[in-house]
Formats: sequence, structure tokens, C-alpha cells
Amino acid sequence: MREKFHDELTPITSCLITMAKAVREAMRQASAALLTADYTLAQQVAVSDAEVDVLGRVVGDRVFHLIGRHPGGDDLRSALTALQAAADLERMGDLAVLVARAVLRRYPSTAVGPELTELFRAMSAAADRVAGKIVLALSDRDEVLAGQLDGDDDAMDLLHRQLFEVMLSSEWPLGVEAAVDGALLGRYYERYADHAVNVGRHVLLLVPAKTD
Amino acid sequence: MREKFHDELTPITSCLITMAKAVREAMRQASAALLTADYTLAQQVAVSDAEVDVLGRVVGDRVFHLIGRHPGGDDLRSALTALQAAADLERMGDLAVLVARAVLRRYPSTAVGPELTELFRAMSAAADRVAGKIVLALSDRDEVLAGQLDGDDDAMDLLHRQLFEVMLSSEWPLGVEAAVDGALLGRYYERYADHAVNVGRHVLLLVPAKTD
Repeated sequence: MREKFHDELTPITSCLITMAKAVREAMRQASAALLTADYTLAQQVAVSDAEVDVLGRVVGDRVFHLIGRHPGGDDLRSALTALQAAADLERMGDLAVLVARAVLRRYPSTAVGPELTELFRAMSAAADRVAGKIVLALSDRDEVLAGQLDGDDDAMDLLHRQLFEVMLSSEWPLGVEAAVDGALLGRYYERYADHAVNVGRHVLLLVPAKTD
Repeated sequence: MREKFHDELTPITSCLITMAKAVREAMRQASAALLTADYTLAQQVAVSDAEVDVLGRVVGDRVFHLIGRHPGGDDLRSALTALQAAADLERMGDLAVLVARAVLRRYPSTAVGPELTELFRAMSAAADRVAGKIVLALSDRDEVLAGQLDGDDDAMDLLHRQLFEVMLSSEWPLGVEAAVDGALLGRYYERYADHAVNVGRHVLLLVPAKTD
């Protein structure tokens, strides 16, 4: 019974992996669009995100049917965990869309001025790193990678604080609009990493220990 | 069997109602603290939020045990919906805490300057209105109230856009820091209403039609 349950969990985990890859790609596109003011690329983010939302519904339906057939115990907890992971992944896709929308809104200007380019390049890299780790953690059932996400999130939080230091210093040359854009974009990246940490926590519950 | 399930859902719905009341109170406290730069009141928001988090875990445990006893069908969907509602309510509590933290960070100054006070008073009222409606929608199983939340959310979105118009106009007198605070605070209120709309949607699924 328990083995059968885990067989049935496999296609659900596959969906979560595809979702994780798609939200990674969505934020990659959004970040590249942000750093180069690329309108066409920013438009594509919505396409990646739509795929994520569809997959989220597929996970919901599959979990629903799975629980109906295998109620109770650890199995139930794994199945509910998959739902939570899907919700976090959907939100990561939404956050990539919010970054892309800022690009579209400011085009043909850039949404980040030269003073913030390096910080946003670093935040983009940090976002890509956490997204890459949740793909691997889900694919290889790797608890070590999942456990590293807290440290990666600390690195993102540090960049987020540096961003505010730059914008709120007396030498900030770019004015109010650029600071408002910077504050919101910074928050999108920070939340993206928070949700990735949540997915990592879910992986630890979703994926049984290898010695199980 | 079905009747028994609904009997067991009642204490879960009670928890959700208590959570909704607590997140309403948390945002009330945070808003009052924001509008009057009240340090002590801002500190109390974390207390209300801690209650919300505890109740969220209680809902999770109860749903877990309920599903174990009554798997399958509409009952399962109601139980899973309660989990999602709890997650949205927890996030509403977190957003109240973020508003309170902005108050603590700027104290003894105010986090919103006089140019934004009226807008934030209106956003606070809008937040209180949506929170009040989800309390009632959950308590009275009122689908009409739940359905009104989309319109209330539109009103919040309009206030949110007005906020940016004020801050990004050429006459904005308060500088970068006040605009950054305003942008983030505005986003917290807007997201609070978004999560309330989600709770409203869950209520429609959670609560069976009265003619059922």
C-alpha cells in the first residue's frame, strides 16, 4: 500500500519539477529583460507563468484523487505537502510576472538605473540559484540541497538590505520613481527566494528519507 | 456520514473565524499605529499575529485528522479548502506585522507623511472592510458577502494606483525615503485585500449552499 502510494506520488512530483523549472525560466527571462530593458522578452514571462498555473491545477487534481484513494497517515501528509509546494511555485511565477510588468511599464527606459544594475544582477543570480536548487532537490530527492536554501535566502536578504542602503543614502541621484521601482522590484526578488525556501521545506516532507 | 463530516468541519470553521477576527484586529492595530506613529500599539501587532499562526497550525492538524477519517469526494474538497483559507489568513497576519514594522522602523517619525495620511486612512478602512466581510462570510456562511470581496478589492486597487500617482507626481515634496515607505506599505495593504479575496473564494467552496 505504502509503496503503491509512492508510485502514485511520482507523477505529482514530476509536475512539481516541471513547475520549478518553469518558474526558474520565468525569473531568468524577467531578470534578463530587466537588466537589458527587453520588451519582447518581458512579454514572454507571462507565457511561462501560464504554464505554471496550469500545472498547479494539475497537481491539485492529482493530489485530490490520490488522497481519495489513500487516506491517512504519512501518505496524507506528503500529498498535502505537494499542494503547498505547488502554491509556493505558483507564487514564484507570479513574482516573475511582476518583475516583467515593471520592465513593460518603464520601456523604453530601464526600470533599474545604472546605480542598481549590479545589485539586481546579484539578486537575479541569487534567485536563479535558489530556483535551480529546488529543481534539483525535487528531482534527486536531495535533502542537502533543500537544507541549503536558508543560507541562500540569507544572501538574498543581505542584497535586499544593500539595495535600500543605496536608495536611501543622501547621494542617491535617481529620484523618487527609480527608488519606488527599486523598492518594489527588490521585494519581488526577496519574496521569490522566501517561497523557494518554503518549497525546500516541503521537499523535506514530500520526499521520504532515502533510508526509509 | 456527510452530516457527520459537516459536524466535524464546524470546529475548523470556528478556528478560521477566530483567525479572521485576529487578522482584522492585527491590521486595525497596525493601521492605527501607522496613522498616529504609536510605537506601543505597533508592538502589539506581533502578539495578534502569533495567535493567528497558532490557530493556523490547529486548522492544519484538524484537517489532517478529518481527512484521515472521511476521505473522498466533496468532503475532501471542503477540508482542503480550509487549509488554503488558513494559509491566506496567516499571510494577512504577516502583512499586518510588516505594516507595524515600518512604524517601529521610522519611530518617532511617522512612516506616512501628511500628503499620504488620507490615502492610507482610506486603505486602512478598505482593509478593515474586507476583513470584516470574511469574518461574516465565514460566520454566517454568507455567499453574498464573500462574492462582494472582488468589488472591495477593486476599490483597494484604485487607492493603490492613486498612491503611486501622488508619490510619482512632480510635486511630491517628501523625498525618496517617504516614497519607498509609501510604495511598500501600499503593497502590504493591496496584498492583504488580495488574500481576503482568496479567503472569500474558499468560503464559497467550504460552506455548502444553504439548500444543500
